[in-house]
Amino acid sequence: MTGFAPGARRDRFFLPEGLVYLDGNSLGPLPRGAKTAISHLTEKEWGETLIGSWNEHDWIGAPERIGDKIAPLIGARPGETVVSDSVSVNVFKLAAAAVLARTGRRVILSEPGNFPTDLYMIEGLKRLRPDLELRLVERGAMADALDEDVALLLLTHVHYKTAEVFDMAALTAAAHAAGALTLWDLSHSVGAIPVDLSGCEADLAVGCGYKYLNGGPGAPAFLYVAERHQGALVSPLSGWLGHAAPFDFSDDYRPAAGISRWRAGTPPMLALAALEAGLDEFAGLSMDDVAAASRELSDRFVQRVYRTCPQLELISPPDPAARGSHVSFRFPQAYEAMQALIDRQVVGDFRAPDAMRFGITPLYLTETDMDRAVDTLADILESGAWQQERYSVRQAVT
Amino acid sequence: MTGFAPGARRDRFFLPEGLVYLDGNSLGPLPRGAKTAISHLTEKEWGETLIGSWNEHDWIGAPERIGDKIAPLIGARPGETVVSDSVSVNVFKLAAAAVLARTGRRVILSEPGNFPTDLYMIEGLKRLRPDLELRLVERGAMADALDEDVALLLLTHVHYKTAEVFDMAALTAAAHAAGALTLWDLSHSVGAIPVDLSGCEADLAVGCGYKYLNGGPGAPAFLYVAERHQGALVSPLSGWLGHAAPFDFSDDYRPAAGISRWRAGTPPMLALAALEAGLDEFAGLSMDDVAAASRELSDRFVQRVYRTCPQLELISPPDPAARGSHVSFRFPQAYEAMQALIDRQVVGDFRAPDAMRFGITPLYLTETDMDRAVDTLADILESGAWQQERYSVRQAVT
Repeated sequence: MTGFAPGARRDRFFLPEGLVYLDGNSLGPLPRGAKTAISHLTEKEWGETLIGSWNEHDWIGAPERIGDKIAPLIGARPGETVVSDSVSVNVFKLAAAAVLARTGRRVILSEPGNFPTDLYMIEGLKRLRPDLELRLVERGAMADALDEDVALLLLTHVHYKTAEVFDMAALTAAAHAAGALTLWDLSHSVGAIPVDLSGCEADLAVGCGYKYLNGGPGAPAFLYVAERHQGALVSPLSGWLGHAAPFDFSDDYRPAAGISRWRAGTPPMLALAALEAGLDEFAGLSMDDVAAASRELSDRFVQRVYRTCPQLELISPPDPAARGSHVSFRFPQAYEAMQALIDRQVVGDFRAPDAMRFGITPLYLTETDMDRAVDTLADILESGAWQQERYSVRQAVT
Repeated sequence: MTGFAPGARRDRFFLPEGLVYLDGNSLGPLPRGAKTAISHLTEKEWGETLIGSWNEHDWIGAPERIGDKIAPLIGARPGETVVSDSVSVNVFKLAAAAVLARTGRRVILSEPGNFPTDLYMIEGLKRLRPDLELRLVERGAMADALDEDVALLLLTHVHYKTAEVFDMAALTAAAHAAGALTLWDLSHSVGAIPVDLSGCEADLAVGCGYKYLNGGPGAPAFLYVAERHQGALVSPLSGWLGHAAPFDFSDDYRPAAGISRWRAGTPPMLALAALEAGLDEFAGLSMDDVAAASRELSDRFVQRVYRTCPQLELISPPDPAARGSHVSFRFPQAYEAMQALIDRQVVGDFRAPDAMRFGITPLYLTETDMDRAVDTLADILESGAWQQERYSVRQAVT
């Protein structure tokens, strides 16, 4: 018995009739409220109030206002979260600021197979700071790898492929004991499972707006800086809207107080309107309850796959409590099988080289959806229909 | 006689009845096509096709496709322009790449009073590369300041306040003669006056989507890299969607060929749909004709101000050919007077400390609009009504 019945908010989303959508961890569906918010922003705010909307509709305050709506989902205090740029760009900002703050330490520690953009952005940072080292260590050896050279521990809380969860509290404590800061990528955590940045004493975090938050395709990302670090850390992407007084138009950069200094350019209002509406669907929900509903659904899904699709190998942790809100299976023809499944109106995704990934999003998915997904998959595997078909290799954006 | 009659495309935009909107250089109005495009993207593409839209609706190719629609407005060849991030972030990417490519040179040359974010981003870059120097020189002395230490000349083509235009061809040639690269900020040029990056042999450029391109509030920006530099320069913001094969999910960054390597995170599709619709309003127009119409309107505006508002001092070049598509005047109570003007449905903007700025956008403005604006202004100044009123200091986003 959970406090949130799977699918209880389904009528708040547009979902095509007959579709089982197990890809909300890649692109969340359109909330009904977002459609309304986007029209309002377009026709009333942009169309009628025009430039005056920066003040009249508080466009200028949107990044912090929406950040504060994300805060309860990640255990942040008000004023510690701001919406800005993309996950990639935010990783750069925070990682750069962290290494600048940890003088004399030259290592950024992460794991191989982390979501690629996190690693790529550090490679980019190294172009400017060739003294830095990106050290990749398997997760079991992570705590031991925290030595006096490590400036920053950069990890994705829930793995994008396997859904494995890092122990944020323990690793943050280990990082602090070694004198390092932590930067947590919450892209597959926020809106999926409870996150307690404050309770874990995490330092820095980033996360994605278009997955479980249902903020729309390419929605802006967010970043978190614990209040205790806000005075000392400064963004290297010091854009004008992170200035203490942007409308003074002075030649010299003076960072804004608090989280606002992490803004860079002009906020993307259409995208922010959609994201804010997505977040409003979480109002009044407990992430503990949502996560319990997710575990119920994903366990049902996995058990049914065990029984009816023995060809698949679970690569996510078998214990629902040890994973995020998606499950992945290995199968040699994962790509073809997923395409066949999509053709049958069950949408998950493929992750190279051989993973079938299914997002479990209890806001709009039910037990019936789970059963239908597995039954369709079993049918495809048994009939081997997918083997006769040819699909062009096309990829979806994670 | 011009080839484009001022206001000839007015019916393609939503503009409130009775409003004279002279702020399209800050936030362009809503194109009718953008309203349709935003609804389509929201309801059909996001709402119905969901994740499949990355392929079916070519979301994944949008940054390059839309970049190629900007290209004719700036004299770029196909494949030299991509839409991504904000102007601020794009300045950082290109400036960083330029200094990395010009080993042994440590100066970025610009002018005091340049649009602040351009300078601020260089300050941010200096946090990571303290060996760099941001050297600010008055525009008259710019060519002489190009010495063997200069890696990059970073200038805004049309000044955001005065509308003064730099001689792009001459300064680019001077920079090249000194061994430096050029980075032109086209935020107040693109869609306003003809720009010929290829003809000037410019190296790098950035520009804004939400001003004359009418791409919506906080629209994504664009950047340009001349084809001859595309193999050598690499973005320090090396996000996954600038990778040669992002869906291989490899740990190592390998930059995409061509302009695509300048992408970083996932493209913001709502914002891109609006921007693309804004650009479609330029289809079939010659920027020479649009600029001629702008000069006609702005000259009429300025001459009428001279006659009826002697209290104002023109701070833009008096010769219409020497300025962009806006005009600015100095007036001690500029802020209060602009507020009074806005209250009378004539919208321009204020730039600290004492400038009244008016954007001249012939796509939707007519001679009648110009006359009404000046007459209203003259009336306000003469009556001194604004002196009796008190306005809270509120600012619009440039």
